[in-house]
Amino acid sequence: MQIGKHVKSWHFKSMNRIQTAIVGASGYTGMELIRLLLTHPAVELTAVTSRQEMGKSIAAVFPRFQKAPAATLTFIAPDPDTIAATGAKVAFLALPHGVAAEIARALLERGLRVIDLSADFRLRDAAVYEEFYGHPHPAPDLLQEAVYGLPEIRTPEIQAARLVASPGCYPTSILLPLLPLLQENLIDPETIAANSMSGVSGAGRKADLDYLFCECNESARAYGIPKHRHLSEIEQELSLAARQKVTISFLPHLIPVNAGIVTTTTAKLLPGASPAAIGAALEKAYATAPFVRLLGQGGCADTKNVTRTNFIDIGWQYDPRTHRVILMSAEDNLGKGAGGQAVQSFNLMFGLNPTDGLLNF
Amino acid sequence: MQIGKHVKSWHFKSMNRIQTAIVGASGYTGMELIRLLLTHPAVELTAVTSRQEMGKSIAAVFPRFQKAPAATLTFIAPDPDTIAATGAKVAFLALPHGVAAEIARALLERGLRVIDLSADFRLRDAAVYEEFYGHPHPAPDLLQEAVYGLPEIRTPEIQAARLVASPGCYPTSILLPLLPLLQENLIDPETIAANSMSGVSGAGRKADLDYLFCECNESARAYGIPKHRHLSEIEQELSLAARQKVTISFLPHLIPVNAGIVTTTTAKLLPGASPAAIGAALEKAYATAPFVRLLGQGGCADTKNVTRTNFIDIGWQYDPRTHRVILMSAEDNLGKGAGGQAVQSFNLMFGLNPTDGLLNF
Amino acid sequence: MQIGKHVKSWHFKSMNRIQTAIVGASGYTGMELIRLLLTHPAVELTAVTSRQEMGKSIAAVFPRFQKAPAATLTFIAPDPDTIAATGAKVAFLALPHGVAAEIARALLERGLRVIDLSADFRLRDAAVYEEFYGHPHPAPDLLQEAVYGLPEIRTPEIQAARLVASPGCYPTSILLPLLPLLQENLIDPETIAANSMSGVSGAGRKADLDYLFCECNESARAYGIPKHRHLSEIEQELSLAARQKVTISFLPHLIPVNAGIVTTTTAKLLPGASPAAIGAALEKAYATAPFVRLLGQGGCADTKNVTRTNFIDIGWQYDPRTHRVILMSAEDNLGKGAGGQAVQSFNLMFGLNPTDGLLNF
Amino acid sequence: MQIGKHVKSWHFKSMNRIQTAIVGASGYTGMELIRLLLTHPAVELTAVTSRQEMGKSIAAVFPRFQKAPAATLTFIAPDPDTIAATGAKVAFLALPHGVAAEIARALLERGLRVIDLSADFRLRDAAVYEEFYGHPHPAPDLLQEAVYGLPEIRTPEIQAARLVASPGCYPTSILLPLLPLLQENLIDPETIAANSMSGVSGAGRKADLDYLFCECNESARAYGIPKHRHLSEIEQELSLAARQKVTISFLPHLIPVNAGIVTTTTAKLLPGASPAAIGAALEKAYATAPFVRLLGQGGCADTKNVTRTNFIDIGWQYDPRTHRVILMSAEDNLGKGAGGQAVQSFNLMFGLNPTDGLLNF
Repeated sequence: MQIGKHVKSWHFKSMNRIQTAIVGASGYTGMELIRLLLTHPAVELTAVTSRQEMGKSIAAVFPRFQKAPAATLTFIAPDPDTIAATGAKVAFLALPHGVAAEIARALLERGLRVIDLSADFRLRDAAVYEEFYGHPHPAPDLLQEAVYGLPEIRTPEIQAARLVASPGCYPTSILLPLLPLLQENLIDPETIAANSMSGVSGAGRKADLDYLFCECNESARAYGIPKHRHLSEIEQELSLAARQKVTISFLPHLIPVNAGIVTTTTAKLLPGASPAAIGAALEKAYATAPFVRLLGQGGCADTKNVTRTNFIDIGWQYDPRTHRVILMSAEDNLGKGAGGQAVQSFNLMFGLNPTDGLLNF
Repeated sequence: MQIGKHVKSWHFKSMNRIQTAIVGASGYTGMELIRLLLTHPAVELTAVTSRQEMGKSIAAVFPRFQKAPAATLTFIAPDPDTIAATGAKVAFLALPHGVAAEIARALLERGLRVIDLSADFRLRDAAVYEEFYGHPHPAPDLLQEAVYGLPEIRTPEIQAARLVASPGCYPTSILLPLLPLLQENLIDPETIAANSMSGVSGAGRKADLDYLFCECNESARAYGIPKHRHLSEIEQELSLAARQKVTISFLPHLIPVNAGIVTTTTAKLLPGASPAAIGAALEKAYATAPFVRLLGQGGCADTKNVTRTNFIDIGWQYDPRTHRVILMSAEDNLGKGAGGQAVQSFNLMFGLNPTDGLLNF
Repeated sequence: MQIGKHVKSWHFKSMNRIQTAIVGASGYTGMELIRLLLTHPAVELTAVTSRQEMGKSIAAVFPRFQKAPAATLTFIAPDPDTIAATGAKVAFLALPHGVAAEIARALLERGLRVIDLSADFRLRDAAVYEEFYGHPHPAPDLLQEAVYGLPEIRTPEIQAARLVASPGCYPTSILLPLLPLLQENLIDPETIAANSMSGVSGAGRKADLDYLFCECNESARAYGIPKHRHLSEIEQELSLAARQKVTISFLPHLIPVNAGIVTTTTAKLLPGASPAAIGAALEKAYATAPFVRLLGQGGCADTKNVTRTNFIDIGWQYDPRTHRVILMSAEDNLGKGAGGQAVQSFNLMFGLNPTDGLLNF
Repeated sequence: MQIGKHVKSWHFKSMNRIQTAIVGASGYTGMELIRLLLTHPAVELTAVTSRQEMGKSIAAVFPRFQKAPAATLTFIAPDPDTIAATGAKVAFLALPHGVAAEIARALLERGLRVIDLSADFRLRDAAVYEEFYGHPHPAPDLLQEAVYGLPEIRTPEIQAARLVASPGCYPTSILLPLLPLLQENLIDPETIAANSMSGVSGAGRKADLDYLFCECNESARAYGIPKHRHLSEIEQELSLAARQKVTISFLPHLIPVNAGIVTTTTAKLLPGASPAAIGAALEKAYATAPFVRLLGQGGCADTKNVTRTNFIDIGWQYDPRTHRVILMSAEDNLGKGAGGQAVQSFNLMFGLNPTDGLLNF
């Protein structure tokens, strides 16, 4: 079988590739990280960890990846010394909150850079973390250093970061459309309401009656009302953009698709703000952003156009009857909402082309 | 085959049954009406019409109904004289707007009572109809007489009606939770925003690329933004309840389920209104309503519990951070949102038990 | 709320209704039995049991049934004395194999008639049971008495039975098309191969990674190859009809629908048998059967026409190129394949009309 | 926007890329070809044609491809001269049968190599074509030259071909598992029966009631029984491998997934053939094939592992009770069953690495 040879020919030379670990790689986010990093031209995967899948190969746990160049790699325990010993220069963490902080610290101490996909380093204020997550923050001293990794908003900070907190799936779909409008003082922060629909992979890969096929198929419902944990990071970032404390309504729903989040957000235009300014603010913010696709006025973002990609599609509309702007965004919750965005930060951190390994359609 | 004999034994005697026609019975709403009326204990189906299926039996067009007692009935053309000649005392119209009004008039003139499931008689003001539907109202003189058929709200009017305008699917899911709160002055009408997700059957049974399986499956998107036609009847009824003109945001979405609408509506509580008053108002309005199921505070309505029934489930939550109340409702868009609700009005019009033919689970 | 009153008016008088228990009522089959028996005109539900849901009402466990007349009934432990004390004259058992036999015996001893939906009493030979189910039969002395409850085939035996073994979902879809052809010596038993596709509810309501939404959606695969447990009862019944030992290929598949089994079975026509004889044999067997719908030559049975009903649709085709007959059947695995068929036997056992409580569309 | 620059850096230099056209690019197969060729490192897309989408860009017709390097390319009419004038050296045809042959001839005459994904050049015998497709073959003189493009079987012929007939989706899933067993004389050709389940994209992107979401969702059914058109090419290739005329049963089904075919094929082992020989024959045939993944004995191929890839997964089992071997294969009907396989042939024809542009997971 000659796959190895052929692949190498269009990859970077192995010696130049960045040695990379994925910690907690047996869930759906871990699976997406594996998918992206297995074919990333600048990555050499050196470690994947999972307590429950230890000793099995990637191909055995995820048959989809059989015959991928590095799918023979074997899951190991999430031990920091072992991970460091593989030569890994960077680790992606796809672990539950609370657990991630501890291993992040250990890996940082061993010289790795860390991209954490949990909620542990997304909030600047440990008290807010405790309010929303129900336990004291496990590593408050690291919060100062961590960068909330929205690549479109914090490019230089991410480039320089040792510790990136990759944003949540819902927050990404809500923040990217809203931030430019708040920065430009176009909308009234008190009137923001975000309605999201998420695919079932957002609930994770765990045995739970609620997420059985027969419980989710032909079903749609709200949940997590009124104070979903993601509100904490959403409001933190909106407040920074608005230069005032912002409190919003957030209404998440579960719908029967594997992947994808569609979010429809409304807010009142401030007096004096014109509808045209909405489109202009979005253009100004994202015209050159490689993974934001602006659909313009009337563009209704559809999850089917973004699944398995790192794109977020954003359209908007103005309702003269209510003076509200309506923002419509769609992303893959595992892609731009998790694994893809983390790889996007990785590309920035290591000086790669922004789209390396991410231009799939 | 002895089905006929057995069925008759638990049905009313044939001579007591109400002779009934369904006009425009080859779409999804027509199919649901057939489903309900084929087994309704007080109904004798005498006519089903469809230009495109003329000459075929119900069982041939909808194989699901094969071996149903009256599935041998043959589709005929929608001719008023022919329909009247079958002895029909009442006709359900499942026709496009514009078309329905003409045949409604003709049937009324021939002495039938009419339950129209189109939009033609839902609006009291012909000018609003023209604004939202893009053509002059085809029978403005009948608007005065027509009753907007929300059985929970207008029981006596429906009982006496000759012409019932059965509400739209989205409006039903939005109005039933909101009306009691407006009547009791608990919420600020200017802050209402309703977010709905509908199954694909809401788009009708027509050959259209947009509704192919592969275009809808693994897809979710907003549409009809910002001025969906259903806004006209929603705002009419909200305004009546609020005793002032109400304008709202309405955000419909298409999701990959066959049937079901889930709606999440938010509004600010008025100063002085307590969260407990929300629950009390809903209880007061619907405690004895046979088809409204109150899920209480925190109850997240799920379409899977209402599909193929005439129930609407309503839960609510209060968000102290934003002072907003969140109303969560779920119904079957073809059931309580269309055919079931029309049969509910039929039961009222003919003095039957409210639940006759509708207690399916 | 007047539902109770109205319902009673078209039900049998309460005093004439048959007191009925469902043992093991918290799975999908139990849910379907509840659904059917809650509205069955001749049934008074007196007991539902579930170890895990003890103390909760039917409506609390299955919100779909809220406001059904008897949904306030509370789950109890599966204790035979307690069940008998509710006055139950008959019990439906929706329990795992092995467990069912013990409680069946206890209930029979207390004078109840039993309709068992597990595999425990389907096989006449305890040795075959042990071969396929991996443990000794728990009540071999009862096998003699038990009736394999295919109502179309064993009407008088079921009418007289104290213990009915209701057939499995796959066997029902395979046996009903094949039995008449074997009885009439039209096909070669050695050439039979049955291919089935089942909805996910067939796997039961249990927390298992394999049946998560994201694992089943957009997936199709064979499983249980080559010796699925249902083969034992399928071959027993085919052998009886063929008056010789029959061994077949059975290829079950899992597909992403909630409910429904479609089975396509092929067999070689015997020399001298004409294609027309296929249709004639099916007509002879089922022309008056209330729940078998013959689609004729070329009729491709579709699960969407039978879901949530007790119908099985059967079409057939002849392939002159291979001299094979192709039988196409569709049923709801929870309906005709489980709960509906059990109620059909119940109707026979208690002298009711065959279609009582089962004519839903 | 810098995407262009980055992409180029890891692509072949533009001057070395092969100029390529897709004729008939607005259906699902065309969409998949676009998806693959947009990111193929050795391809420069110079023309996409579609009568109905003329004048629109790829990104406008398929919003999924927005921001792909070449998505600004505009659909043109399928005129051979215009296509040739774009410099195209090769054309993929995703057109209906009958139509493809004519344009294939015209393009060949203009010096292009052609990879036809229709049925027009798959059969060696024009009479068989007429029997199965209902009209005389439109270009019988080209049949001699055309190569049936199964890359695993005809590598050298494809490398040298001017005209490749890319196999149908069902045939690929049936032929790859069976061919080695026939070549090695392990199975009885008279006993072969193939059962397939296909996703709805197999029906094409056309407005047709039968393929509406609500008609396909929660539905499963056989169709095309007993003489589906694909039988012609299946039996042609099986006969070549078996060195005798082979006639089989083929039972296609439609199931509610977007993409994917799972096929389960049974055949009797010939006397003297051992079960182990099955596994050995598959290993011998495919151990070094880059896109065939052997799952071994008991491996149940699942479509979810192959969707959006060019892999075909093949497992097998032996049933000692019936002496039948059971072959289980899964592929993406648009991938290995259409577009992916065509690109695989393209790579052979142009001396590229076999996996170029196809190693997606």
